[in-house]
Amino acid sequence: MGRDRVVRIGLLGFGTIGSSVYRLINKEHDQILEGTGVDLRVAKVLEIDPKKRPADVPEGLFTADFADILNDPDIDIVVEVIGGTTFAFDFLDAAMRAGKNVVTANKQLLASRGQSLFELAGDEGRHLRFEAAVAGAIPIIKVMRESMIAAGIKTVYGIVNGTTNYILTKMYADEGDYADILKKAQELGYAEADPTADVGGGDAAAKMAILGSIAFHSRVKLTDVAYEGIQNVTLGDVRYAKDLGFVVKLIGAARLIDGQVSVRVFPALVPEQHPLASINGANNAVFLQGDEIGEIMLMGPGAGGQQTATAVVSDIVSITNTKDVGFLQSCSCYRALGFYPADEVESAFFIKTNVEDVSGVLARIASVFGDHGVSIASMIQKGRGAEAELVLITHPTKEKNFFAAIADMKALNCCTSEPMTLRVL
Amino acid sequence: MGRDRVVRIGLLGFGTIGSSVYRLINKEHDQILEGTGVDLRVAKVLEIDPKKRPADVPEGLFTADFADILNDPDIDIVVEVIGGTTFAFDFLDAAMRAGKNVVTANKQLLASRGQSLFELAGDEGRHLRFEAAVAGAIPIIKVMRESMIAAGIKTVYGIVNGTTNYILTKMYADEGDYADILKKAQELGYAEADPTADVGGGDAAAKMAILGSIAFHSRVKLTDVAYEGIQNVTLGDVRYAKDLGFVVKLIGAARLIDGQVSVRVFPALVPEQHPLASINGANNAVFLQGDEIGEIMLMGPGAGGQQTATAVVSDIVSITNTKDVGFLQSCSCYRALGFYPADEVESAFFIKTNVEDVSGVLARIASVFGDHGVSIASMIQKGRGAEAELVLITHPTKEKNFFAAIADMKALNCCTSEPMTLRVL
Repeated sequence: MGRDRVVRIGLLGFGTIGSSVYRLINKEHDQILEGTGVDLRVAKVLEIDPKKRPADVPEGLFTADFADILNDPDIDIVVEVIGGTTFAFDFLDAAMRAGKNVVTANKQLLASRGQSLFELAGDEGRHLRFEAAVAGAIPIIKVMRESMIAAGIKTVYGIVNGTTNYILTKMYADEGDYADILKKAQELGYAEADPTADVGGGDAAAKMAILGSIAFHSRVKLTDVAYEGIQNVTLGDVRYAKDLGFVVKLIGAARLIDGQVSVRVFPALVPEQHPLASINGANNAVFLQGDEIGEIMLMGPGAGGQQTATAVVSDIVSITNTKDVGFLQSCSCYRALGFYPADEVESAFFIKTNVEDVSGVLARIASVFGDHGVSIASMIQKGRGAEAELVLITHPTKEKNFFAAIADMKALNCCTSEPMTLRVL
Repeated sequence: MGRDRVVRIGLLGFGTIGSSVYRLINKEHDQILEGTGVDLRVAKVLEIDPKKRPADVPEGLFTADFADILNDPDIDIVVEVIGGTTFAFDFLDAAMRAGKNVVTANKQLLASRGQSLFELAGDEGRHLRFEAAVAGAIPIIKVMRESMIAAGIKTVYGIVNGTTNYILTKMYADEGDYADILKKAQELGYAEADPTADVGGGDAAAKMAILGSIAFHSRVKLTDVAYEGIQNVTLGDVRYAKDLGFVVKLIGAARLIDGQVSVRVFPALVPEQHPLASINGANNAVFLQGDEIGEIMLMGPGAGGQQTATAVVSDIVSITNTKDVGFLQSCSCYRALGFYPADEVESAFFIKTNVEDVSGVLARIASVFGDHGVSIASMIQKGRGAEAELVLITHPTKEKNFFAAIADMKALNCCTSEPMTLRVL
């Protein structure tokens, strides 16, 4: 197109994502050059592990010293895919100070130490792009920042952790136990040996912190997100949900309520007709509600080196074409909104418990809920006599009222099992 | 942000979309200014119909003479939402020659006379943006162009006409007849008085021409798209599909096959598990398959003045922040690929027909399909004796072979009704 320009990349890390980025840049090089005039080249790769340096990649490309990238004036963009929050932070910090734009796929780093990096990017006039940090190949960051600029987004629901969605999908489809399916997921490589970050909700919480920040232009840190995981979701819950027309999903919810921000992660019952109910396996999805746009959803692969690499490359190409650094980019956190109190949030709830002496007990339980202003949408009981299983779904109610009702219900001493509660979307 | 700049808009047309754009720019003005430093103002509105000039909009804003916009050097961007392919063309052509960037929501114009406009944009170094022309509020143009740059997209399936999707959804859910539901849709304003462009597939074809051009970087005009509508889809077909686990949808399909482009629109059976099967009512969706990215889908409102206005405003803001005009923008049709012959495309088919004397006939029909290399995936018959209903689903096969088999089947003279055929996704 008569304006070809060479853009040189310094790649930090040559694991699954790093090697995919390298391969993709080479594979799509000519097409990107033809379409954009940008001649993309991976100039240097930081990889200290010799086992991660494949024979078919020129050995001269690798270095074990970050300074070789930092001090190379021909390197324009540094791509960080080593993970962690220490070296990754130092490298990005130094790269921006040295005049380089940066791309990262590191959600934990952004959710915990992002503020300092975004401020540096602003001060130094650098790009700090991170499409790959949330929902893998789904271009949710660009869409929220650029396309939804006048959409009046008020709610962001995300299925942003592929491991938990895989497990919940399998529990639903195969009617398998949580522990068995987790074990199988680990064997297949869908879950880590230590699955805590995924099944405990922490990974989803980091991603929702980032999405909340972008959606409402106000910084949300990982520590601002209240999160629960799926460890206590049983096959029985999933089956009950199915009978009632629901699917259990680990939902991230970022909401703007009365001018304040609420970001949380919890397992929830999603109605079968809701678009999020159809997101299966390791897929991710982000569902947006806005005053101007109504409802919109993006779904796609949330992980995978190859898929995530497409997001990294799109960030690189976007950097080469943006006029004002900072404009619609970086965190765009120009507001400093407060956080909406968690126990004031309104949610509908599903409750399951075993009770004795059903006939007398139902009225007393109903009365406890009524006392706290919690209105019951539906009630199902199975079995009669000495012990029956009781399932309730409430209308949306302030969470503090709901949990007060649950405490009073337990004080009735008629529950023969610990009540199980799940939010309903 | 210390770099506020005024950007003045000339708006052509003050109908549903135009008035929504005006309202949205005013409503989101402060937020856009705060987030981007762009001070957006609608400076002039071309609207010749006095009935479309509401009392709450300053009368001084309106003009009946395009020259007032064309010759105003302070107007930076012209937004065309008058529709049609004559005045709209002349206005956009003149605006670009006068140094203005342009935004349009006019799919018919782009699909029929886009080449000349895109070439002019390239020659003059102007933006020609059109996010709102396809799938309303869904940011599919930006996503395909910017985020999917290295995704290796090979297939684009779209539900891009809200009217037909509304009708088909109602037929499925309410088990109503096509004619009755169309009439109701017209009463509700979901279908035009003359519904031909929607139900005949022409509207979807124009949108798929645009999506095909963007996906494969090669120009596809409306006349390059083979399209069929939903006028012949009966309630019986929809019910049969339901029984077999399928939903009937009007599908746009743009594919890259052996380096050639195929773009078509047809009613098709979509398996219930497919993400496109869950797109209901007047919603739109675009489903992408790529070598690098796997599968990704965007869904949302495909129409509505308010929703479409969000896409127009995002185009305006994007123009103010793009470094190189033409880079990833306009048509990006830097290739000139051929078109894949329609009858060589491989499709699976559903066939329904009434036949006489089932026992003898089945073998003869099966043999006709076998002779043409068309393999049968499943066969169902209802009724016995004098007349039975026969339903077949084939494996994917070249369309010319399939239609040759259908011709031979009809020549057997055992069909007592015209065979109904639908493609299967």
